[in-house]
Amino acid sequence: MSGYDHLHFLKRAVRLSAENVSKAKGGPFGAVVVKDGKLIASGSNLVTSLNDPTAHAEVVAIRKASAKLKTFDLSGCILYSSCEPCPMCLSAAYWARVDAIYFANSREQAAAIGFSDKEIYDEVAKPLTERSIQIQQLPLPEALEVFEHWQISVSKIVY
Amino acid sequence: MSGYDHLHFLKRAVRLSAENVSKAKGGPFGAVVVKDGKLIASGSNLVTSLNDPTAHAEVVAIRKASAKLKTFDLSGCILYSSCEPCPMCLSAAYWARVDAIYFANSREQAAAIGFSDKEIYDEVAKPLTERSIQIQQLPLPEALEVFEHWQISVSKIVY
Repeated sequence: MSGYDHLHFLKRAVRLSAENVSKAKGGPFGAVVVKDGKLIASGSNLVTSLNDPTAHAEVVAIRKASAKLKTFDLSGCILYSSCEPCPMCLSAAYWARVDAIYFANSREQAAAIGFSDKEIYDEVAKPLTERSIQIQQLPLPEALEVFEHWQISVSKIVY
Repeated sequence: MSGYDHLHFLKRAVRLSAENVSKAKGGPFGAVVVKDGKLIASGSNLVTSLNDPTAHAEVVAIRKASAKLKTFDLSGCILYSSCEPCPMCLSAAYWARVDAIYFANSREQAAAIGFSDKEIYDEVAKPLTERSIQIQQLPLPEALEVFEHWQISVSKIVY
């Protein structure tokens, strides 16, 4: 796709972010998922209006696109976001296997208006013992057994 | 809460992971959200059965708990997961502001049975230019303007 097309879809994501602020539906973020030059799904941040801390624009758009295409595998799709995806949304894009991501505002610009994206990037990269949220492994033999059952399961669908 | 209680709820998450494999609903993962010693919500991995790449056990449990408690803020809650949360789920826990996370299997044990959790941890920590998925900033003045509108918006709800 040409640079022009990228800007076309990115501007669409930005318009969604603007509408989200004017309608007071959630944070100033919008995203779209595109495949073969066609818009598949769009999303905006609905954290506060839906009471769903995972309802970031990119997650909303990825969930909608997957439902529409009836697959958990968005290979061949491009994600456009008005802002750099936070680690939750970036990881969602990896799990969904999108081909590429384009964004307008950076995590630093999001931090400047009070969002924790950059802080969470820093946290995710830390060893468990240095994190601000207490996180601890309590190993259980039965949990590992489930992994073994999964490995030999004939009905498993790998994703 | 005592160590006993932690194991009680962690074992519940592990049982969910076992059921998920036997019912072939998705990956071998289960999670519960607990507040004041009471189970608020549970979740299992539904990626393949729902065609939703974001439907990891922890995300499912966090979304359900938020809906049930009618808030995007899960302060005071503890997240128990049969496996170390991937960066998507860990970040979701940060956005939800849970107090603590306990898990059984590690990201390395998940990698050993074919899951990308560890790989995505490594990717999220890399500079944009070194990532395996192409990711690029295309700055747009109108995107930054939206951030400015958000800052002065009187109807915004900070999360």
